[in-house]
Amino acid sequence: MAFGNMGDDCGTGVAFTRNPATGEKKLMGEFLTNAQGEDVVAGVRTPMPIQEMADKFPEAFAQFEQVCKTLEDHYRDMQDMEFTVENGKLYMLQTRNGKRTAAAALKIACDLVDEGMIDEKKAVAMIDPRNLDTLLHPQFDPDALKKATPVGTALPASPGAACGKIVFTADDAKEWANRGEKVVLVRLETSPEDIEGMVAAQGILTVRGGMTSHAAVVARGMGTCCVSGCGAIKMDEANKQFELAGKVYHEGDWLSLDGSTGNIYGEAIPTVDASIGGEFKRIMDWADKYRQMNVRTNADNPRDAKQAMKFGAEGIGLCRTEHMFFEADRIPAIRQMICSDTVEQREAALEKLEPMQQGDFEAMYEAMEGKPITIRFLDPPLHEFVPTEEADIEQLAQDMGKSVQDIKNIIAGLHEFNPMMGHRGCRLAVTYPEIAVMQTKAVIKAALNVQAKHPEWHMVPEIMIPLVGEIKELKYVKSVVVATADEIIKAAGSDMTYKVGTMIEIPRAALTADEIAKEAEFFSFGTNDLTQMTFGFSRDDAGKFLDAYYEKKIYESDPFARLDQTGVGRLIEMAAKLGRQTRPDLKLGICGEHGGDPSSVEFCHNTGLDYVSCSPFRVPIARLAAAQAAIKNPRG
Amino acid sequence: MAFGNMGDDCGTGVAFTRNPATGEKKLMGEFLTNAQGEDVVAGVRTPMPIQEMADKFPEAFAQFEQVCKTLEDHYRDMQDMEFTVENGKLYMLQTRNGKRTAAAALKIACDLVDEGMIDEKKAVAMIDPRNLDTLLHPQFDPDALKKATPVGTALPASPGAACGKIVFTADDAKEWANRGEKVVLVRLETSPEDIEGMVAAQGILTVRGGMTSHAAVVARGMGTCCVSGCGAIKMDEANKQFELAGKVYHEGDWLSLDGSTGNIYGEAIPTVDASIGGEFKRIMDWADKYRQMNVRTNADNPRDAKQAMKFGAEGIGLCRTEHMFFEADRIPAIRQMICSDTVEQREAALEKLEPMQQGDFEAMYEAMEGKPITIRFLDPPLHEFVPTEEADIEQLAQDMGKSVQDIKNIIAGLHEFNPMMGHRGCRLAVTYPEIAVMQTKAVIKAALNVQAKHPEWHMVPEIMIPLVGEIKELKYVKSVVVATADEIIKAAGSDMTYKVGTMIEIPRAALTADEIAKEAEFFSFGTNDLTQMTFGFSRDDAGKFLDAYYEKKIYESDPFARLDQTGVGRLIEMAAKLGRQTRPDLKLGICGEHGGDPSSVEFCHNTGLDYVSCSPFRVPIARLAAAQAAIKNPRG
Repeated sequence: MAFGNMGDDCGTGVAFTRNPATGEKKLMGEFLTNAQGEDVVAGVRTPMPIQEMADKFPEAFAQFEQVCKTLEDHYRDMQDMEFTVENGKLYMLQTRNGKRTAAAALKIACDLVDEGMIDEKKAVAMIDPRNLDTLLHPQFDPDALKKATPVGTALPASPGAACGKIVFTADDAKEWANRGEKVVLVRLETSPEDIEGMVAAQGILTVRGGMTSHAAVVARGMGTCCVSGCGAIKMDEANKQFELAGKVYHEGDWLSLDGSTGNIYGEAIPTVDASIGGEFKRIMDWADKYRQMNVRTNADNPRDAKQAMKFGAEGIGLCRTEHMFFEADRIPAIRQMICSDTVEQREAALEKLEPMQQGDFEAMYEAMEGKPITIRFLDPPLHEFVPTEEADIEQLAQDMGKSVQDIKNIIAGLHEFNPMMGHRGCRLAVTYPEIAVMQTKAVIKAALNVQAKHPEWHMVPEIMIPLVGEIKELKYVKSVVVATADEIIKAAGSDMTYKVGTMIEIPRAALTADEIAKEAEFFSFGTNDLTQMTFGFSRDDAGKFLDAYYEKKIYESDPFARLDQTGVGRLIEMAAKLGRQTRPDLKLGICGEHGGDPSSVEFCHNTGLDYVSCSPFRVPIARLAAAQAAIKNPRG
Repeated sequence: MAFGNMGDDCGTGVAFTRNPATGEKKLMGEFLTNAQGEDVVAGVRTPMPIQEMADKFPEAFAQFEQVCKTLEDHYRDMQDMEFTVENGKLYMLQTRNGKRTAAAALKIACDLVDEGMIDEKKAVAMIDPRNLDTLLHPQFDPDALKKATPVGTALPASPGAACGKIVFTADDAKEWANRGEKVVLVRLETSPEDIEGMVAAQGILTVRGGMTSHAAVVARGMGTCCVSGCGAIKMDEANKQFELAGKVYHEGDWLSLDGSTGNIYGEAIPTVDASIGGEFKRIMDWADKYRQMNVRTNADNPRDAKQAMKFGAEGIGLCRTEHMFFEADRIPAIRQMICSDTVEQREAALEKLEPMQQGDFEAMYEAMEGKPITIRFLDPPLHEFVPTEEADIEQLAQDMGKSVQDIKNIIAGLHEFNPMMGHRGCRLAVTYPEIAVMQTKAVIKAALNVQAKHPEWHMVPEIMIPLVGEIKELKYVKSVVVATADEIIKAAGSDMTYKVGTMIEIPRAALTADEIAKEAEFFSFGTNDLTQMTFGFSRDDAGKFLDAYYEKKIYESDPFARLDQTGVGRLIEMAAKLGRQTRPDLKLGICGEHGGDPSSVEFCHNTGLDYVSCSPFRVPIARLAAAQAAIKNPRG
C-alpha cells in the first residue's frame, strides 16, 4: 500500500510481528505521517521506524502492539499488517501470514513451538520445503553482491553461488583444480565425458540446454551451481574465449555464477559456505519423527554418498554404475569390451573392469556405513562409451589388434536412430549376459568383503535391473545374477542374502506389474524415463516445443521436474497396486528427479511408496515434504 | 509315415479326401505294396496312385472310400489319412484335417457348404486368413520357377513375386519405369525420399533392415514385393553394382524376388498376376455378412485407395498427408515453410502448398466415391523434409534469399537426439498453428468441391490430430481447426458437418482417454507408435537386440506385427472404456500395422472397436478375420 497524504494526527503503517529476514521476535515496520520531514531534493518523505511511533502515538502504538499479539495468537503465525491512525485512533486495514526467508521460517516455526502457540506437526507443515534449497548451497557474500552488476542471465539450473577462473574443457577444469585453482567450466553443452571436469569446477555455465539438460541434471545431483542455456554467449572454443554483452572473456578470467537466479557476473564475487543452524536441525528431527516414508539418495560416488549422509539420507536408492566407467583408467577396458568379436574377448575385457567395479562398490558401502544401496546395472547405450577423437580410435585399434577402419565400422554399427529407445538397459544384459555376470561378481564380492570388515553391519546387496518391460526379460537376467551370486556366496561360506529388483520406467512394466512382481523383489520407479515414454517425448528434444506449450497454457509445469500425476501417476498407482497384489511385501520406491520435488513426494506418500530417493542436496527437502504429506494424510 | 516292407497282399497308403492343391472333390493319394517294381538304379519303389488300388484290393478300396465319406461327414472337413491293408483287410491308422493351399481352402469350404456339410459361418471360420495373402499378389510362373535356383535369401518382407532389371536409385527406378522397363530397386535401405521409386518398381531388395524397416512397411502398404535385410550383398553404389554369392550384378541385369519366401534369383522368372476366383468372392461375401466391425484401409494416394476399394475397403482409416509433400513439385514449398523466420513467411510458403493438398484430397475423395476418409494432419519431424544434397541446399538458399550457411544452420538446428520422441505430430501444430490452418482449408475446400460435384454422396470430412498426449493440446489444435473450417463452410453457404478426432498412440493419451474424449469425436489407435512407446523401443533400433530376445524365448512374436495384448492391449482396453465413459458414441478404430493381423483383429473385435484399418492388400484378410472373431464371440 502507498502511504497516503494526511494531517499531523494521522498516519499509516506497515509492520510484521517478527523479522521476516531473520525470524527474530520483534515488531518490524514503518510508519509515516504528514509531519515527517520531506526530502527537499527528491520531494519524498521517509517513513519512521515503527518503534518511533511509540513516541508520537503512544496510545495507538500500545493498542497496535496488543492487536499484533491478538492476531498472532489467532493465526498462530507471523503477521504482515497494514493500518492507519486517524485522530489518534488505530484502524487495522489488513493482516495476512507474512512472507519470510528460509532462515526466518525455521526460526519462527521453532519459536512458535517454544511459545506454545503451535505443535511440532504445525511447525513442520508451515515450512515451504522448496525454500530449504537456498540454505544448502554456498551463497555470495551479500555486501560484495550488492556492488556487482550481472553481465548476462540464463536459466537457474542448479542453485548456489560459484566464483572461479574460466576454463573451457573438462580436462583443463581437472588440471587447474588439481593445482589449487577455483574454476568455472564454460561449455557449449556437457556430455558424460565431462563428468570429472564438472566435479572439479565450482560452477558450470552452458550455452545450450534447458533445465533438464545433461549439465543441469548432473549439476543438481552434485549440488554444484549451474547456469544453463545462455544463448547470448558467442563461443570461440578454438581460441578458448567467448563474447558476452560486448566483452570478450578469456581462459583464466574471473567469472561468478548465481545458480539460484541465473545471473552471470564478469568478475570475482566471494562466496560464503552455507551454515545449517540449530532450528534447521530441530525442524528436520521433527520431520523425521512424523514422516512415514524413508528418504534415500541417488549417488554414484563416495563423495556424493557422504554428502547425502550428512543431509540425513537413509540409504542409496539409485547407484548408477556406468558413471564409474568414464574414468580414465576404466574407459579403455569398456571400449575393448564393446569392440570385442567373441564372448571370450568380451569376458577378458570385463575381467579387467571387475576389480575396479568391486573397489567402487566397496568404497560406496563403506561411505554408507552399512546402509542399503540399490545398485543399478549398466544402462546407457554402448555408443556413449566409444571414442570420438581420432587419437583415441587409433589407440583402441592398437589395443585390440584391429585396423582403425574396423573400429570405425564397429562405432558406426552402434549408431541408433532413437538411442533412448534403443539397445540399452537390461537389453544389454540379454544380448551380453557376461556384463551382468561381471557386475554381479563385483557387487557380491564387495559386499562380502565389507561385511567381513564390519561384522556389525547387516549387508544385503540390492541389485536393480533397468528398463525391464516384460517378465521373461527380468527372469532371464535375474537367473544370470542369481547363478553368479549364489556360487560366490556359497564359495565364501557366507549366508549373506541379497535382493534382485527392477526399475519401473517402461510403461509396459507398469501395465504388467502383477507379472513383473513375480520375479522382482522391489520396484523403483524411474520417473525420468517413465515420463519420457508416457508423454512420448525425449527430454533432450522437448525444449524445442515446450515453451510453446507453456505459453499456450497446455502444460503448467515441467513434467520432468514435477511428477505428472494425471498420466504418469496413474501408471505408478496401477503398478503399485498390481505389484502388491502379487507380492504384498514388495518394496516400492522412486528414484527419478521427482524424488526431491515436494508435490511429487506427497504423491509418493499417498500412493504407499516405502521410500523416495533424490539427489544429495534435496534429501532435506524430501524429508520435510515426506513429513508434511504424512501429517496431512497419515497412513493407517 | 514311411512306407513299410510287407507281403503281396499287404500295403500301406496315405490319402486326402479332396485335392489339397486345388480343392477338387476327388480322392488323392498313393498306395504301396511289396509287389510294386523296384527302381533298379535307385533301389526305391514308387507307390501307385490311390485309384489303382481299386484293381489290386477292390474290397479294401471300396471299404476305404466308405470310410473316407464317414470321416468327412464326421469331421465336416477334408481329411488327410494313413492306413494299411493286411491280408486284404483295411486298417485306418490316423486321420486329421488336411493341410491345403489357399485356393483349395476356399473351394473346399464352398463345396462343403453346397454339399450341406457345413453352414456359411463354419466355411468362413475354416479359412486361415493369413493364407489369403498369396492369392492377392503376382506369383512366379510355376514351371519357370522349378528351373530356377536362388542365389541368396533374406527376409520375406512383403509377399508376391517380382521380376525386373536392377536399378540402384529411386530416380532411376522412376525414369526406367517411365520408359516402359520393369525394374527391381536395390538399396542399402530406403527412406521417405525413395517413395516414388518404390512405387515405380516391381520389387524392392534392401541390404539392411528388418520386417518393420521403412522398405518393408511401405512395400507391404503398396502391395509391392520386398525382400529385406540381405546382408550377404556387398554393395558398391558408386559403380552401380553389387556382389552376391560370388557374382557381380550390374545396373540393368535381370533379378527376380520372391517376397513370400525371401528368395533372390539372379535371372528373369516370368510372373503371373493373381486371379480372384469365384469361391474367394463367395467366402468374402459371407464374411461381410457376419462381421461386426468395418474394415477400412490405410492409403495416401488414389492408386492405393482404388486398390483397397477393389478389395472391399469401406473407407480410409488413415490418410497420411506428409507423403504428398515429398513429390518434386511440393518439396520446395515445404522446405521454404520450414526455413521461414516469421509467421508471414511460413504462411506464404503454405499458401503455395494449399491448392496442391486440396487437389490431393479431392482426388482421394473421388477415388473413394464418397466413402469416409480419416485425414491425419502432418506428423513427421520437419528434418525429414530438409535437403541433404549440396545442390538442393543451394537452391533452397537462393529461393529464400538466405546464405547457404544460414540454411545449413537451420538444418543443424532441426537435429534431434530421439526424433521419434521429438518435435512432431500435433506438436508441430501447437508451435506452427498455420500448418493446421492450411491443412484444414485444403480438407474442407476439397470436401465442399467434391460434395458439389456429387450431391448423391454424403461428405463428412474426418480430421485426425496425431500424437496427442494431453487434452489441452488437442483442445488447442481443435480450436484452430474448427475456427478455420467453420468460416469456410459458412462462406460457402453449406451445412456440411465434419469430425475432429485423434490418434491414440502416446501412452498418456490412453491413460487419460476419459479427458481426451471430451474433445475427440473419434479415436484411432496408432498401434505402431503405441507399441514403441509402451515397450520403450524404437522399431528402427530394435533389430539389434530382438533376435537375442527370440532366441531366448523372451518374445515369441514381433510386437510390431502381432499386437501385444498383455501390455499394449491393456492400454487399448483402458482407453476404449474410459473414452466411451465420457462419450458413449465415440467411434473407435485402429490404424497401425496390426489392423491387418488376424489375432490383432480378433482382439479389436473383442475390445469393441468399430473398425480396423490396414494396408490395401490386407483388407480381405481383415474382413475375414473380423468375421471369424464375430462368429467366435458375437457382440450383443
